[in-house]
Amino acid sequence: MSTGFFRDITEIPFEGPDSANPLAFRHYDPDEVVMGKAMKDHLRFAVAYWHSFCWPGLDPFGGQTFERPWFGDDMASAKAKADVAFEMFQLLKAPYYCFHDADVRPEGADFAENTRNLQEIVEVFARKQEETGMKLLWGTANLFGHARYMAGAATNPDPEVFAFGAATIKTCMDATHELGGENYVLWGGREGYETLLNTDLAREDQQLGRMLNLVVEYKHKIGFKGTILVEPKPQEPTKHQYDYDVATVYGFLKRHGLENEVKMNIEQGHAILAGHSFEHEIALAGALGIFGSIDMNRNDYQSGWDTDQFPNNVPEVALAYYHILKNGGFTTGGTNFDAKLRRQSLDAEDLLMAHVGGMDICARGLKAAARMLEEGSLAGFVEDRYKGWDAPEAQAMLKGEVSLDDIAARVEAQGINPKPRSGRQEYLENLVNRFV
Amino acid sequence: MSTGFFRDITEIPFEGPDSANPLAFRHYDPDEVVMGKAMKDHLRFAVAYWHSFCWPGLDPFGGQTFERPWFGDDMASAKAKADVAFEMFQLLKAPYYCFHDADVRPEGADFAENTRNLQEIVEVFARKQEETGMKLLWGTANLFGHARYMAGAATNPDPEVFAFGAATIKTCMDATHELGGENYVLWGGREGYETLLNTDLAREDQQLGRMLNLVVEYKHKIGFKGTILVEPKPQEPTKHQYDYDVATVYGFLKRHGLENEVKMNIEQGHAILAGHSFEHEIALAGALGIFGSIDMNRNDYQSGWDTDQFPNNVPEVALAYYHILKNGGFTTGGTNFDAKLRRQSLDAEDLLMAHVGGMDICARGLKAAARMLEEGSLAGFVEDRYKGWDAPEAQAMLKGEVSLDDIAARVEAQGINPKPRSGRQEYLENLVNRFV
Amino acid sequence: MSTGFFRDITEIPFEGPDSANPLAFRHYDPDEVVMGKAMKDHLRFAVAYWHSFCWPGLDPFGGQTFERPWFGDDMASAKAKADVAFEMFQLLKAPYYCFHDADVRPEGADFAENTRNLQEIVEVFARKQEETGMKLLWGTANLFGHARYMAGAATNPDPEVFAFGAATIKTCMDATHELGGENYVLWGGREGYETLLNTDLAREDQQLGRMLNLVVEYKHKIGFKGTILVEPKPQEPTKHQYDYDVATVYGFLKRHGLENEVKMNIEQGHAILAGHSFEHEIALAGALGIFGSIDMNRNDYQSGWDTDQFPNNVPEVALAYYHILKNGGFTTGGTNFDAKLRRQSLDAEDLLMAHVGGMDICARGLKAAARMLEEGSLAGFVEDRYKGWDAPEAQAMLKGEVSLDDIAARVEAQGINPKPRSGRQEYLENLVNRFV
Amino acid sequence: MSTGFFRDITEIPFEGPDSANPLAFRHYDPDEVVMGKAMKDHLRFAVAYWHSFCWPGLDPFGGQTFERPWFGDDMASAKAKADVAFEMFQLLKAPYYCFHDADVRPEGADFAENTRNLQEIVEVFARKQEETGMKLLWGTANLFGHARYMAGAATNPDPEVFAFGAATIKTCMDATHELGGENYVLWGGREGYETLLNTDLAREDQQLGRMLNLVVEYKHKIGFKGTILVEPKPQEPTKHQYDYDVATVYGFLKRHGLENEVKMNIEQGHAILAGHSFEHEIALAGALGIFGSIDMNRNDYQSGWDTDQFPNNVPEVALAYYHILKNGGFTTGGTNFDAKLRRQSLDAEDLLMAHVGGMDICARGLKAAARMLEEGSLAGFVEDRYKGWDAPEAQAMLKGEVSLDDIAARVEAQGINPKPRSGRQEYLENLVNRFV
Repeated sequence: MSTGFFRDITEIPFEGPDSANPLAFRHYDPDEVVMGKAMKDHLRFAVAYWHSFCWPGLDPFGGQTFERPWFGDDMASAKAKADVAFEMFQLLKAPYYCFHDADVRPEGADFAENTRNLQEIVEVFARKQEETGMKLLWGTANLFGHARYMAGAATNPDPEVFAFGAATIKTCMDATHELGGENYVLWGGREGYETLLNTDLAREDQQLGRMLNLVVEYKHKIGFKGTILVEPKPQEPTKHQYDYDVATVYGFLKRHGLENEVKMNIEQGHAILAGHSFEHEIALAGALGIFGSIDMNRNDYQSGWDTDQFPNNVPEVALAYYHILKNGGFTTGGTNFDAKLRRQSLDAEDLLMAHVGGMDICARGLKAAARMLEEGSLAGFVEDRYKGWDAPEAQAMLKGEVSLDDIAARVEAQGINPKPRSGRQEYLENLVNRFV
Repeated sequence: MSTGFFRDITEIPFEGPDSANPLAFRHYDPDEVVMGKAMKDHLRFAVAYWHSFCWPGLDPFGGQTFERPWFGDDMASAKAKADVAFEMFQLLKAPYYCFHDADVRPEGADFAENTRNLQEIVEVFARKQEETGMKLLWGTANLFGHARYMAGAATNPDPEVFAFGAATIKTCMDATHELGGENYVLWGGREGYETLLNTDLAREDQQLGRMLNLVVEYKHKIGFKGTILVEPKPQEPTKHQYDYDVATVYGFLKRHGLENEVKMNIEQGHAILAGHSFEHEIALAGALGIFGSIDMNRNDYQSGWDTDQFPNNVPEVALAYYHILKNGGFTTGGTNFDAKLRRQSLDAEDLLMAHVGGMDICARGLKAAARMLEEGSLAGFVEDRYKGWDAPEAQAMLKGEVSLDDIAARVEAQGINPKPRSGRQEYLENLVNRFV
Repeated sequence: MSTGFFRDITEIPFEGPDSANPLAFRHYDPDEVVMGKAMKDHLRFAVAYWHSFCWPGLDPFGGQTFERPWFGDDMASAKAKADVAFEMFQLLKAPYYCFHDADVRPEGADFAENTRNLQEIVEVFARKQEETGMKLLWGTANLFGHARYMAGAATNPDPEVFAFGAATIKTCMDATHELGGENYVLWGGREGYETLLNTDLAREDQQLGRMLNLVVEYKHKIGFKGTILVEPKPQEPTKHQYDYDVATVYGFLKRHGLENEVKMNIEQGHAILAGHSFEHEIALAGALGIFGSIDMNRNDYQSGWDTDQFPNNVPEVALAYYHILKNGGFTTGGTNFDAKLRRQSLDAEDLLMAHVGGMDICARGLKAAARMLEEGSLAGFVEDRYKGWDAPEAQAMLKGEVSLDDIAARVEAQGINPKPRSGRQEYLENLVNRFV
Repeated sequence: MSTGFFRDITEIPFEGPDSANPLAFRHYDPDEVVMGKAMKDHLRFAVAYWHSFCWPGLDPFGGQTFERPWFGDDMASAKAKADVAFEMFQLLKAPYYCFHDADVRPEGADFAENTRNLQEIVEVFARKQEETGMKLLWGTANLFGHARYMAGAATNPDPEVFAFGAATIKTCMDATHELGGENYVLWGGREGYETLLNTDLAREDQQLGRMLNLVVEYKHKIGFKGTILVEPKPQEPTKHQYDYDVATVYGFLKRHGLENEVKMNIEQGHAILAGHSFEHEIALAGALGIFGSIDMNRNDYQSGWDTDQFPNNVPEVALAYYHILKNGGFTTGGTNFDAKLRRQSLDAEDLLMAHVGGMDICARGLKAAARMLEEGSLAGFVEDRYKGWDAPEAQAMLKGEVSLDDIAARVEAQGINPKPRSGRQEYLENLVNRFV
């Protein structure tokens, strides 16, 4: 039964690349097989509850622009919102969704009321999942919006905030587990500092390490089979965020003995804000064995804040999927649209068109990435480039069988004087452009 | 005997804050005691050979502007350069200097000639150290300037480049050891990539990890007692540098089992380019137990490249020394001026004035930092802020004695609902301004 | 009669540099004479109504943190707010304040109600000004917060929005005039675009030019003697703002015949976001004859958005006042603290301490700037550097008396081959450091 | 007769989109007609002499990587270089080239020798143009590389440097005129400052305004029919460049009475460094009536310096050509590849492949732009969005027929209360993606 919000739109059809229908897919055909697997199973699209159904169009200089019938902080509104949300998931044929507790339930007066509210909505979601076949990619706790977390959740100087946060995570992990979520995410939006002048980095590191260990221990206790994901971000909302980027989180995990328990949820916009490309963060997580999932969006390169726009650049998205596919593709992870409408995009159609466009961009990117992999020149070039390392002397250096002075003696004795070889960057960029 | 380069300038006197003499110290009185120690022993100033005696004033759009009598790539020039360098160290009363091999010797046709050239200069330096009392803060190998390293030294796809680089490091460690150097530095200026398209991150990580292990093994083999330092930098000269920042290098060290063997040489400009403040990088290294030394300079906040200017902002420098002092001060490390004249600053006096100004800024910063520490309000505020963590329930959480569901049960049972407390950022900033 | 908000604080005394009282001035002594004028008349401090009394502590990832008894969108709240505001102005001895209409009155259902609400508050303010001696530095209209302006005010594609905005400016100019305001400000927070795809730059330029001409015409019509000020800002809230920086606004004024009617209100944070230093924007406006007033604050150099922090760096602030003083100082302009508390700074004391600290920083900066000017070396150096231009041949070139081929002939005939001279940047930076 | 540098490569054929030949065009077929005009006449490709034939592969941390047989600062080398250059122009079927004097002739001991050297090469070029049909898109003077210009050319404090620069421009304008160049470019690479402390902005503005007037006067004197172009750039090589961006240069032209005499040469990388998109700068120049030509390249978004890479992103390039076509296309301007090989791209093939890839990207971008224009939805949407301005009341406001108080009275009387309308950004972005 339709909520009426999307008026007479009943589904987003696939019409192929020549369609001029703004409410049709031109590239995303869920069952089209790419490298032996249906596109829907490669891409594993999820809709983000917060941006699509909760965000009112605020920016730092302007108030609400979106009028939605379900806005309101009570249980009836929460249910009306769920009706529209699941309707949209179906229109889009997105198999997954993601949510924070604060997106889906009214804010209660205390922890107990929050828990009851969440539980009530979980039951609604469970029923809707069953009716529609939609699945939960991941759940998470919002430990950044409420004033109590202004100085951090796990890293708060007040242990009661840590306790409140921990308790909240517990209820969100329970909800995720109950709804069959395939991952549980932690984004440390307030785990950082505004000024080093009031901050003890060593203490806060200990607190954060403990919180993540609590999460992992609880996962095993309840038998949750999903993946625990941390989402890096450099600076914003705070001056400095502890989970700056993939390399930083890797060091943190290693320090706290968690590198085999936790993986990364990598967001394009956060990669950009940290000074990296999206594909860098994906490839690095792959190389370190901690790649998990992605938050697909795009950050304006000229804006120094988190713009969370829908992706619209196929060449860039293709490189991201290239590295995902090279790393074996998603297992429990997926493509979550952590993207929001521009605040001037007021209408229901805007919400649909934004997702349709984003899904098509991802489909084009995936198909281009698959062609690059299948054609093989790119990977072949890289492999060739390092083939000198197969030689016995090279392997001896790499395996630690020779010392610095051994190597120096060999260089001197053999008069080793290597000549530079072209790195062929433009050739490789052109090669990519054959596929995008 | 004077080289004549500095004409009739025979020393930079300390004349106190009211002096208008541009070639006098107004704040740096080497023997003034600050927190029980002479300033010279706190600051441990070093002059960087490369910027002061080698750089010709090039920029990406313009050629040489400096005319120096010692420019030339032969041994006689190298010795003339050494004469001026040691003369300047004495004029400035800087107790230390730092160098790369390529700064001090002509480039030879091959490794053997490089080694001979370096050895000849090491003998010159040894004699000059004895004559003048100057000491070597650190030595290092230039593995980034020559075309052979264009695609990396340790991380080169060609193992012969690795070998050449390793051999070169060996000779530079020998030179540093022979000259009584207190540290040995590695800056991975080409350890990174220009394009991910031709790069295998996992392989290059293995190569880089091996190289650093070779260095540590060789240190112990030859009995070098100094500290091995890695200098982080994010992007430049390459698109991405592997030693991005302190947090990234920490993860790398941990991955390769080196976190107890290697410390950080932190540069202000590199911190800025990585999106951090200088004091952040220092405090983080302190918290992780890997703080070593600093490259003092300043990066223009609006320029997106490494500007290596002399420091000129006391409030900023004071915060850097505050965190250094809080961490116990330097042990083998020191304050190396990795700073260069602007390319329009052509004259011998410019070279002196730049260092005099920088040393005075550091002296003011150090004294302000010492006053902050001695007064104690800042540290006291921070300690107070976390004192809730001393409570038994808090300690139980931190020590892992309770689980997530235990904490949730306690939050619910006790109705824990923490109230936010002011973080007092402006108060703390004002407090700092009492001292700078 | 105290509102009680600041409890028992009755004034911020001047206690001199050695005071450790966080609620005393250490440097700002209003009547201290600097270069022949009282500091209060140099600095002309103003408090910004919006940040101090309206902003609830929101950020893009978190909700309200401030609890203020006067929060509420009704006339009684507006009056309670005014009571606290004027109390704070007096505590701080700030002679001026600044406001937008939306800061001071409840939002009405339509233009007429907005106008009535504003008028009612103007009467309150007029009475309070008389009672307290406080003065209005400038008034302005908020044409960016309400959803109607989401696509621009003057530059909106809908002419009714232009009309609503114009009408609102009219009421705010009336209010400013009635309250004896010394300037009227326009900040085009929505005059720009989110995407060029839906934007006609030429049309929007015409609309914006017309609006500013309407303002200037109305100023003369009503006999307002204050200065019309435009406040540049590059990007934020929109992707691109038309009033990017001083140079851009100059071109706009010139295009619309307004360069003699309108001056600049320059904000530190906006300068930084545009890639300039604060002093650059001030000096440029001075050179172009359009310097008006400043919005004093500081932007975090690492954060890519408008952080609006209180100033805390004396060397930087000193350079700003140096260029203001060199340009003759303020006439109708002043130093408006367009700065807000960090959202963790919850308390009434934080509000006072932030301003006290900022005012002291400005006082130190002003005094340093005055010393630099009085000592004269800096200005003297600059004048000397260009003295070659006094020669007759140089003047002939500058005055257009010779042509390109004349000059070429002279260069060839005289064998002109100029030698570079040192720019002495480090010497000059050291010189500044003698005074800050 | 082949120089042998490109070995057996005799031309770059067009082979169509399915070709896997890295030395074939896949999209650029010079005679293919797009919107009624051959692609070659739309795109008007030019090769930049400096990057392709002069740059040795330096970066700020590394030396020469390129070995070219023609490197050397003598006339024989200059002629050998010209042979290779014209050979490459023909291989690429690029109809145009661009040069600075310093790219093509050896540096002489003085102005007279420079002039003679240039003249000798101009004769060589003239003959080669006749033989090959190649044409000169523009010439320019290098007033930034030599040490004499380190503190500016026109804006130098030393009038003799101004004279030397003016004389040099004269000879370059003569050369351009003689070679039938279609434009003459000025890039003020040193017209700016390193520190405001030694700079007088007002004086330097006068000097720069005079220089540009000298150029315009001389153009008319010699009857040069081409366009005078200024190329904006924000920061680099200096701390601040006076020709920051299009809006800034517009203001400068207007101030010096040159807005009808001078147009813009807009570079992608410079646009990015100024915080703008390339299409913004193009569209703005179009709206202001000063669009001239483009320097096509791409700047790495994460690198804060001028990376001058070859373009490789079709969606971005398409938007640039969309705005160029909407503005009527090039007249005297064209698409100059101001792009250089990465310094690891050592080989002759790299030089060809980089240009082939870039030309193909531009061809794809142009064709996509043409399809967007021909389809018309994008332009139609924009026109519709402003159609309210056709109403008489709207026109009355725009034409200045009503005053601010008239408008206010109408808003109040009619109860005008405009409702926001969706800006449809995502729809428009999707629309673009139908064509790229």
